[in-house]
Amino acid sequence: MPHEIDDRFKEECGVFGVFLNNPEKDTDAASTAYFGLYALQHRGQESAGIAVSDGHQIKLQKSMGLVSDVIKQEDIKDLKGNIAIAHVRYSTTGESGIVNAQPMVFHYLQGMVGLAHNGNLTNTVELRKQLATYGSIFQTTSDTELVANLLARYSQDQLEDALAKCMIDLKGAFALIIITEDRLVGVRDTMGIRPLCLGKFQDGYVLASENAAMDTIGATLIRDVEPGEIVVIDKDGVRSIQGAVSPRKAHCVFEYIYFARPDSTLDGINVYQARRELGKQLARESNFDVDMVIPVPDSGTPAALGYAEEAGLPFQDGLMKNRYVGRTFIQPTQSMRELSIRLKLNAVDKIVAGKRLVMIDDSIVRGTTSKKIVEMLRDAGAKEVHMAVSSPPTRFPCYYGIDTSRREELIASTMDVEEIRRFIGADSLHYLSIEGMFEAMGGNAKNYCDACFSGSYPIGTESVKKKPVNE
Amino acid sequence: MPHEIDDRFKEECGVFGVFLNNPEKDTDAASTAYFGLYALQHRGQESAGIAVSDGHQIKLQKSMGLVSDVIKQEDIKDLKGNIAIAHVRYSTTGESGIVNAQPMVFHYLQGMVGLAHNGNLTNTVELRKQLATYGSIFQTTSDTELVANLLARYSQDQLEDALAKCMIDLKGAFALIIITEDRLVGVRDTMGIRPLCLGKFQDGYVLASENAAMDTIGATLIRDVEPGEIVVIDKDGVRSIQGAVSPRKAHCVFEYIYFARPDSTLDGINVYQARRELGKQLARESNFDVDMVIPVPDSGTPAALGYAEEAGLPFQDGLMKNRYVGRTFIQPTQSMRELSIRLKLNAVDKIVAGKRLVMIDDSIVRGTTSKKIVEMLRDAGAKEVHMAVSSPPTRFPCYYGIDTSRREELIASTMDVEEIRRFIGADSLHYLSIEGMFEAMGGNAKNYCDACFSGSYPIGTESVKKKPVNE
Amino acid sequence: MPHEIDDRFKEECGVFGVFLNNPEKDTDAASTAYFGLYALQHRGQESAGIAVSDGHQIKLQKSMGLVSDVIKQEDIKDLKGNIAIAHVRYSTTGESGIVNAQPMVFHYLQGMVGLAHNGNLTNTVELRKQLATYGSIFQTTSDTELVANLLARYSQDQLEDALAKCMIDLKGAFALIIITEDRLVGVRDTMGIRPLCLGKFQDGYVLASENAAMDTIGATLIRDVEPGEIVVIDKDGVRSIQGAVSPRKAHCVFEYIYFARPDSTLDGINVYQARRELGKQLARESNFDVDMVIPVPDSGTPAALGYAEEAGLPFQDGLMKNRYVGRTFIQPTQSMRELSIRLKLNAVDKIVAGKRLVMIDDSIVRGTTSKKIVEMLRDAGAKEVHMAVSSPPTRFPCYYGIDTSRREELIASTMDVEEIRRFIGADSLHYLSIEGMFEAMGGNAKNYCDACFSGSYPIGTESVKKKPVNE
Amino acid sequence: MPHEIDDRFKEECGVFGVFLNNPEKDTDAASTAYFGLYALQHRGQESAGIAVSDGHQIKLQKSMGLVSDVIKQEDIKDLKGNIAIAHVRYSTTGESGIVNAQPMVFHYLQGMVGLAHNGNLTNTVELRKQLATYGSIFQTTSDTELVANLLARYSQDQLEDALAKCMIDLKGAFALIIITEDRLVGVRDTMGIRPLCLGKFQDGYVLASENAAMDTIGATLIRDVEPGEIVVIDKDGVRSIQGAVSPRKAHCVFEYIYFARPDSTLDGINVYQARRELGKQLARESNFDVDMVIPVPDSGTPAALGYAEEAGLPFQDGLMKNRYVGRTFIQPTQSMRELSIRLKLNAVDKIVAGKRLVMIDDSIVRGTTSKKIVEMLRDAGAKEVHMAVSSPPTRFPCYYGIDTSRREELIASTMDVEEIRRFIGADSLHYLSIEGMFEAMGGNAKNYCDACFSGSYPIGTESVKKKPVNE
Repeated sequence: MPHEIDDRFKEECGVFGVFLNNPEKDTDAASTAYFGLYALQHRGQESAGIAVSDGHQIKLQKSMGLVSDVIKQEDIKDLKGNIAIAHVRYSTTGESGIVNAQPMVFHYLQGMVGLAHNGNLTNTVELRKQLATYGSIFQTTSDTELVANLLARYSQDQLEDALAKCMIDLKGAFALIIITEDRLVGVRDTMGIRPLCLGKFQDGYVLASENAAMDTIGATLIRDVEPGEIVVIDKDGVRSIQGAVSPRKAHCVFEYIYFARPDSTLDGINVYQARRELGKQLARESNFDVDMVIPVPDSGTPAALGYAEEAGLPFQDGLMKNRYVGRTFIQPTQSMRELSIRLKLNAVDKIVAGKRLVMIDDSIVRGTTSKKIVEMLRDAGAKEVHMAVSSPPTRFPCYYGIDTSRREELIASTMDVEEIRRFIGADSLHYLSIEGMFEAMGGNAKNYCDACFSGSYPIGTESVKKKPVNE
Repeated sequence: MPHEIDDRFKEECGVFGVFLNNPEKDTDAASTAYFGLYALQHRGQESAGIAVSDGHQIKLQKSMGLVSDVIKQEDIKDLKGNIAIAHVRYSTTGESGIVNAQPMVFHYLQGMVGLAHNGNLTNTVELRKQLATYGSIFQTTSDTELVANLLARYSQDQLEDALAKCMIDLKGAFALIIITEDRLVGVRDTMGIRPLCLGKFQDGYVLASENAAMDTIGATLIRDVEPGEIVVIDKDGVRSIQGAVSPRKAHCVFEYIYFARPDSTLDGINVYQARRELGKQLARESNFDVDMVIPVPDSGTPAALGYAEEAGLPFQDGLMKNRYVGRTFIQPTQSMRELSIRLKLNAVDKIVAGKRLVMIDDSIVRGTTSKKIVEMLRDAGAKEVHMAVSSPPTRFPCYYGIDTSRREELIASTMDVEEIRRFIGADSLHYLSIEGMFEAMGGNAKNYCDACFSGSYPIGTESVKKKPVNE
Repeated sequence: MPHEIDDRFKEECGVFGVFLNNPEKDTDAASTAYFGLYALQHRGQESAGIAVSDGHQIKLQKSMGLVSDVIKQEDIKDLKGNIAIAHVRYSTTGESGIVNAQPMVFHYLQGMVGLAHNGNLTNTVELRKQLATYGSIFQTTSDTELVANLLARYSQDQLEDALAKCMIDLKGAFALIIITEDRLVGVRDTMGIRPLCLGKFQDGYVLASENAAMDTIGATLIRDVEPGEIVVIDKDGVRSIQGAVSPRKAHCVFEYIYFARPDSTLDGINVYQARRELGKQLARESNFDVDMVIPVPDSGTPAALGYAEEAGLPFQDGLMKNRYVGRTFIQPTQSMRELSIRLKLNAVDKIVAGKRLVMIDDSIVRGTTSKKIVEMLRDAGAKEVHMAVSSPPTRFPCYYGIDTSRREELIASTMDVEEIRRFIGADSLHYLSIEGMFEAMGGNAKNYCDACFSGSYPIGTESVKKKPVNE
Repeated sequence: MPHEIDDRFKEECGVFGVFLNNPEKDTDAASTAYFGLYALQHRGQESAGIAVSDGHQIKLQKSMGLVSDVIKQEDIKDLKGNIAIAHVRYSTTGESGIVNAQPMVFHYLQGMVGLAHNGNLTNTVELRKQLATYGSIFQTTSDTELVANLLARYSQDQLEDALAKCMIDLKGAFALIIITEDRLVGVRDTMGIRPLCLGKFQDGYVLASENAAMDTIGATLIRDVEPGEIVVIDKDGVRSIQGAVSPRKAHCVFEYIYFARPDSTLDGINVYQARRELGKQLARESNFDVDMVIPVPDSGTPAALGYAEEAGLPFQDGLMKNRYVGRTFIQPTQSMRELSIRLKLNAVDKIVAGKRLVMIDDSIVRGTTSKKIVEMLRDAGAKEVHMAVSSPPTRFPCYYGIDTSRREELIASTMDVEEIRRFIGADSLHYLSIEGMFEAMGGNAKNYCDACFSGSYPIGTESVKKKPVNE
């Protein structure tokens, strides 16, 4: 049941790092990392972990589960140190779970090093083969262990030089945070596909996937880490190295549409405002003769508010979320099977009965959930149910760190809009256009990766197709 | 930390019952009860339990935790039967936890009986003493065990007669669901303080604290159980007995303001619509010269939408909830202590910066959270922060099943509105009037218990003051 | 698998109590009770619990599992007080588990009271019916809750008088330890079937099923509690009341043969020495032409040593126990099924190969284990395998607190000695005679209950046959 | 507390492997490995793990805890395959726990490989440095990961050749079991310090630290793996390669004295018989004028039986073990502190009172436990307490896989026999001589490592002294 209802794309990971200035006095980087990670929980619920350096060695605590399950007060006490990195990972299943959890910590020629990674490499098969030929062994299938092995190939170099060499080898999307005994390093792929930003915290610095994590702990956003940039933080402050250069940027547009927190601002654009603008643009592109606008909560709400404002229609919470939904693994009996969506959402019949309405959602993945919501609204007495989607049809899988399932599971890859409308049972269906999307985003289409809509992948994807996306 | 942030009144409990007609074929009442309970999770997160009868004996599964933690697929398999009752309980602490969890199941002269109870009795001290004199022993401090002992006093009577006698003895608020080997019974106190409703489910019937639980499983609301009514459901259908009579009703008005789900309709009034109307009335009573209305999510949202509509002001989601907040027991360091509210909420600075705004919440308990939100909005650049509350000041403790903490912890019991405004740091503060509240609710003030606002308790409370509220 | 290998009678329970003199200074009775209970772990591995009084109230900690799993350091800290009782219970299965765990604590007219019980009542059906007629309710099926309800019937009396009245009502075997706010009480049934002894500990006193528990904590045995005696310990010291009188004693002889620890001395007879004497007597009654004596470890060892000494034969450890056997629930594949005994025991082939030997065990229950051991010894090359048992054939079930399974499972109830010999595959088989057993025990046959051998039950057993033994 | 009582040397690990012939039909190697491991539980209680190959890939299940805690029926189902290796590890503490658990499984150039290791390498510091220079990274501090990295250096070679090269690099003690997709390999260090044997099981083969594990599953011992031998088992049967040659053998003599199971036969000598002979030799070397011989159970029992037989003295179980001792972490109060040994052992006063006795133990580590036992025997009334030890004084730490603690903790490294006698409070004390030990073992002193007694280490130990023994 969780799967059928959770009919959303999945973010792969969130990363966080903190450097406090004084190894003698600032021994509680772990606690800061904990709260930063807590604020990034939406980016992954499978596993969580924190690695901390006290200037001499790196200690690690990680496990399967939510941040608050994995890290306990006694762990924080054990993880004394002034530098920390932290990681949350999206839920997959199977025995590989814990061995692939992050951060990962390694001993190598230069000492100890820990890595936390968000993204997906596209040339892992080639790189693993090449490294194995030199004698590398792999305990996991994770990109992170691969990066560590690659780094160790250049262990005769200074860390910055070694990282610059790695950036030449590594293809794909990566926002990487690295801890050594005395440094915190952030690296972002050359197109800036996955987000990473730098902030000021007390006397030190933080790195995070999203600046909402900085708000949570009282840190202040300085700027985004640039595509291809290596940011090194140590006792002498922040140092920036341009690791590799790409002719274009390719920020993931789906971060704005669905993944990132509305209170984050990524690469200069606030997420909540972007969603509102996407809703407004959607209103400009469509024209429904209805009585009210209702959102699919929570992620459809900002676009619905924008839509209602632009269209001059009343906004109503016609669908209510069950605030205390946990995971349930109980099988409903046959007679209740069709109702499973109601564990999460319920239509307020007193609002929707007898009304013509348009419901706004941010995207449609497989369409099964939208279909059930339309049914539920009709059961509650809605006279007409129209649907508008604040993004274009998602027709292509992502190879850069988002779990989009396989292409054949994406409804828009096998059906056209009219077929989808019939499948979900709406009276009419409107998707935002790709052009409209970029207009709402401020116009710079060429700065974004829109491969999931357009199929135009900014980096080659041959190798990645050989391996399961989630490995 | 959970306490300081969770600055809300706590509901005590939720109850659910289901009767399926055919003990041979309908053996999966437990699964229905599970999903019904799941929909009532907001009424209690401490413990959950289900008791099931197969016509011969009653089996029980209960434990500390959320419904989905407590009941597993294998439990459902073990709990074969056509009748079930279920219970969720609000989180308190201490060793008494599991022994006070419900339902409770007993052997007595007539066979087995199980009880699930929402509410609070006000004459327990007298009743326990009286029963002990006859030889009763108590393993817990719960009202439920007390009711069971009382019932056993009348064990020579038919169950309906015994219950009618119990209703004469029992003072206070109670919505009680009872299971025997072959019957499901619902009882509501004579003033109808706590909600309880009756619905049709397939060939049988359900009882629930709120009808949203019926929507979840595909059942249909028939009607509310009447104050003082005993509803008996067995193989012959539904039978109603008037157990005791009171000159007035006293439905808890706070169910509409905060506790119940917006998609529930209690005693004829839809909760979402009531909240919207409370917001509209609040707009009519107040007059803020501001740029926008923002809700304190999630419970303040319906009133804020109503307020914005009535006042003709823009509605914006200026405060964002962290969707994945779990319980955390990590102590923040001194430097982060003031930020703890940000684990749950964050202001979207791009929206509120430079703006004059009114924030809408449903109530203020201790005021500490409101104070932090006001600070956070100012930190995010808000020019003016006004606050309007969609209920009157809560100045008196509840003795009928709501955990309001002690009176001295209620900010409105020790400060006037101007003092509260200064404490929370708002530019101005407006509470809804008691009269306005009842006007928004449709006018029948005398049908509701408003003791937490007015101090006018519909039932004597002497005895209850001798015991801790949560026992 | 555990069942087939664990082919032994099961003890039901062990009880322990401690009274320290000074409620202000001696607040650590819980820790003493913990170590006392730890020493009685062999009497029950299902659940463990400790109840403690600090003079004002009784606190309780109990759970399923071994003592060291159930009671943690933080529990000990929470259980401050100068009086404690403790209980271990033999492993049964099913949901009734935790509700039947002991001690049980109750509120009644006189205040709080806690009970821990070893034994089995034989008139529970009658007593429960009688109490229910007066209005008693039962949450469990345990004898302990029944005794508490009975006690509450006499709650107008002083505790000693109430207990004396209870002893008239209660039939069967019971060693009962009771805690109130300010007293520790021990009660033993009128025939003294189950053991209970009194000791001196520092300035206070202890009660325990076996005095080995006193050795463990550094207490000293004073004497056994007499059959029918009520021992009351409070700040004025120890007081003895003769509760009820029986014309005879009936100490369980199986405590000496198998259950009790060898380092305990029960009712004047040391268990290790009794076992050695039983072995010597067995040697005098039998005559095997063999090369060596080997014990079935561990319980057969003392008798085997006595046998070897009396018979003038070499004693060898021909069977080795796996020291780290835990519970395993893995199903062996078909090809390994017959080998399951080898998880626990292994024959040392270098010792037994080519030898004629007699193996000594304390008893045979179903015979399946003996059969496997004989096979294993033959597989290891033994030329002849004879068996001698240091007790008579166990042909009748116990109704006084021992789990003997049903009668039809006792091999000696359906087969004669020659048939048993053939079943287990031994070259010859000899059981100790009943007369020989009592001679080895010192001669006073009339002081013991030997119902499991003779079928002569000292107390009527009609009622008990109506209920499952383990309820 | 566990530490003070557990005053014994600790074995580091036990290993087991099984190869079944038919990958299509024999898919339950995991279950065989489970029961084999279960029989080796005495060699390590910290962690347990099983790795299984189905011909295509290797799956792994491992965790902290006993075998029966770590491996569940559903794990066995998931671990389908015809080849398995398994490992138990001695309990150490700290976060490194799970990462150092075995088996470890790696991807390398040739595919997948899993390793399970018993022993300790003495040149790890040099090897790690050398490998890191080539680019190796280490996630753990375990020897096993080091061996895997070394193996990967030679990944262009056939596995047998690569292993032969590894044996030239590796110094120290190792009994290594390796699994690949289609092979099972056993390797023993060139002196044969740690035990490893080969057996026949159904159509296939097993490898195990001790042959007692073969008895448990119904396999038959073929022979010991030779020092320096590489045994390769695949579908073509067993193949033997002589990996490296040493001028001498150095079987660990302490395996016979204490570690191995009495029912095992290592390198031709049965452990139980060896212990008995050590006891007899001890009797020949000493001369106590006493009434009886008592063992310190369980490990002192075989020597005590041999002693009693040779000396013509009665053997009595004067010390009784608590059969159900688990780990306890409860702190005893001050007044009970001295009694902690009594949680494990108790003197039977009826046996020892008034008697002159000699107690036999296999070794003395720190002496604290012996001291407490002597006191306990005197408290129980023993007139004289003499002690005889069935091995020479242990004066030197082990660097070959046994946790002997640091040298300064070994009482015999800082005191002479008379000082030890005074410390433990015995009336007299006799240790077996080194010469006597080897005479009892059959005379071939030069085949054994006796470094812990003689300080004469068969392999250089410089490197190992730089690292903590338990890493």
